[in-house]
Amino acid sequence: MINIAILGYGTVGSGVYEVLKKNAESIKRKTGRDVVIKKILDIRDFPDHEEKHIFTKDFSEILNDDDIKIVVEVMGGVSPAYSYTKAALLQKKHVVTSNKELVATHGAELLKIAKDNNVNYLFEASVGGGIPIIRPLNQCLAANEITSIMGILNGTTNYILTKMIKEGKSFGEALKRAQEKGYAERNPDADVLGHDTCRKIAILSSLVYGKQVDYNLIYTEGINNITKEDILYAESLDSVIKLIGFSELKDKKVFARVSPMLIPSSNPLASVDGVFNAILVKGDSIGDCMFYGKGAGKYPTASAVAADIIDIIKNIDKNMKFYWEDGSADYVVDIKDSFSTFLIRVKEGAREKAKELFGDVEFIHARGVKGEVAFFLPSVNEGELIKKLSQLEGFISKIRMAE
Amino acid sequence: MINIAILGYGTVGSGVYEVLKKNAESIKRKTGRDVVIKKILDIRDFPDHEEKHIFTKDFSEILNDDDIKIVVEVMGGVSPAYSYTKAALLQKKHVVTSNKELVATHGAELLKIAKDNNVNYLFEASVGGGIPIIRPLNQCLAANEITSIMGILNGTTNYILTKMIKEGKSFGEALKRAQEKGYAERNPDADVLGHDTCRKIAILSSLVYGKQVDYNLIYTEGINNITKEDILYAESLDSVIKLIGFSELKDKKVFARVSPMLIPSSNPLASVDGVFNAILVKGDSIGDCMFYGKGAGKYPTASAVAADIIDIIKNIDKNMKFYWEDGSADYVVDIKDSFSTFLIRVKEGAREKAKELFGDVEFIHARGVKGEVAFFLPSVNEGELIKKLSQLEGFISKIRMAE
Repeated sequence: MINIAILGYGTVGSGVYEVLKKNAESIKRKTGRDVVIKKILDIRDFPDHEEKHIFTKDFSEILNDDDIKIVVEVMGGVSPAYSYTKAALLQKKHVVTSNKELVATHGAELLKIAKDNNVNYLFEASVGGGIPIIRPLNQCLAANEITSIMGILNGTTNYILTKMIKEGKSFGEALKRAQEKGYAERNPDADVLGHDTCRKIAILSSLVYGKQVDYNLIYTEGINNITKEDILYAESLDSVIKLIGFSELKDKKVFARVSPMLIPSSNPLASVDGVFNAILVKGDSIGDCMFYGKGAGKYPTASAVAADIIDIIKNIDKNMKFYWEDGSADYVVDIKDSFSTFLIRVKEGAREKAKELFGDVEFIHARGVKGEVAFFLPSVNEGELIKKLSQLEGFISKIRMAE
Repeated sequence: MINIAILGYGTVGSGVYEVLKKNAESIKRKTGRDVVIKKILDIRDFPDHEEKHIFTKDFSEILNDDDIKIVVEVMGGVSPAYSYTKAALLQKKHVVTSNKELVATHGAELLKIAKDNNVNYLFEASVGGGIPIIRPLNQCLAANEITSIMGILNGTTNYILTKMIKEGKSFGEALKRAQEKGYAERNPDADVLGHDTCRKIAILSSLVYGKQVDYNLIYTEGINNITKEDILYAESLDSVIKLIGFSELKDKKVFARVSPMLIPSSNPLASVDGVFNAILVKGDSIGDCMFYGKGAGKYPTASAVAADIIDIIKNIDKNMKFYWEDGSADYVVDIKDSFSTFLIRVKEGAREKAKELFGDVEFIHARGVKGEVAFFLPSVNEGELIKKLSQLEGFISKIRMAE
């Protein structure tokens, strides 16, 4: 028998409760043990819950209970999740989490505490919802150097972009639809401005490159400025626009960014639509490899948490060597020092000036877009590009392109 | 230090050798141990190999060496791989394999022997080449009931179909191109007739439904009869034709088959092109989940073998509870008792007879196809369908459709 505690009884917490109950038999078959949910921490009351006696508002009841071996932290946010997690690990309890904010902020430290105390800190549910991604990536790693990651990591923005692409809706209309469907929050900033994607690409990059990638250092651009014209350019180029969390390891430095990108239809990420997520990784032995599924939702996320719980039960007496080290201040390269390929949109009248600044560029038109043209800049230094664009009267917008 | 032996030094075997050497440092970091390749079994001589002294033609040198803890069987075929594997497991050696034929034929027995001897028999490389699929599926399983699997499991046939779809080539032309590129064998039957896909869907089904699925009982149809006209119908229906290994668990019985299918472009499998493989699974908690990557090739396959070796080193003293049971004779449902949705092609003149047999069906035309029409039959019993079709003069062909 293994006793566990759940911290936070919101959507994910109650999903974990249900999934563990429903699959009790299968879990026992896999692990040889019964899983008992001994305590649930929540500041709210649940007077009608079938197990209302196991609810508590006092974390110390969980922390000081030596029978509780695994703590499931699904509260979200850094505080008080950070101090609870740290205390539990120091008390030699394993911790499973879906909390991307906490893993992205304090991952290296918490993983080290887990290792020092011979327990595990697992976070499969923090990226890609139910998609098994963290463990397969870790598995790939020993026999592969992963050289880059490109991910559609946020279902809300992918839903909005899909509506814009397939139904010709504006950003505002598509956002409103996402809010009506419950896919976007009333305040959609964390999704729409790219912050959620940024936390997730930081976690994936930390894992595969082996050192903490500080998400504050990752250049992050949302989809809020994407217009119907951008969508029409994408169409003319047999591409679609996706919000991409990207990172690449070069000369032991990380080049990472979150931004909308033009993805050619031949790229497997191009057909990932609606609330689905997908992560494309490149390894030196394995080549391109993609993981696809629902990136959020009560049961997908809960089933990822449950998979971690099962893995811990199978390894209850040891640390699984699943960690990364601290990063240095210069580990993430400044966006100004990185190189990307761009599509630059300018007003018709800016052709001459564009040629003066960027050489003999070729102008293209998009079907249905009037009064402007666009041109490609392959692999340009972003710092220099920004300087030059500041001199380009008639500049409309720029968007990165996948190769 | 862990001593291993490799059985078979062909493409995969030499790939495993190289990947283990190249990633020695990373493997040590992950496992805390040095991996030493102590013996390689092959009937051929390798007089110029840098470690020619470790080659042997005598399996007993490996079997009776108590220092060898892990045997990597990458010979292919059932004999002598079966007897070598069995002997090694009985001698309490772990075995890692890429041999789909052997796993599909004797999986349940070998997994049981491994369990009884407290060692492991792992086969990540047997399906989907380098794509991490076996372990993620196993991970999904405890918190999910997997209800169906649909996979593009053979790169050769997918390459051929992609050439037919994108370049309008005939089956024969596309096959010839695949042979020139080294993607198809001189005798392409195992791929083209669907046998390779059949072994792989049998392995996946055995794993996720928990009992051995006998591949001899799986209805198997190849792509050799697919014509340009079929491709044109697919186009008209905004679909593509893929060779699909399908299986579904219903009322504790397995419905499985290998056949070309019409896949609508909205399905993520539709955009899996060329030599790539992809496996789409449906779980009750997780929803749709897809794994995508190179399904074959020296280094992808070798890196999957290496991942298994690393997993075993981490669990060197225990069986990982990774197995399935024997199946019963009636576990796989006869194709005649299963239901599918079909597109039926008939000559123009057969319209009346078709209506007489199948009711008021609606006829469709495909752009570029003359002298014939087609109609849908949603969810029909396959046994009854075959009977009726035998009465339908002017019948051309039938193809299953994904929903």
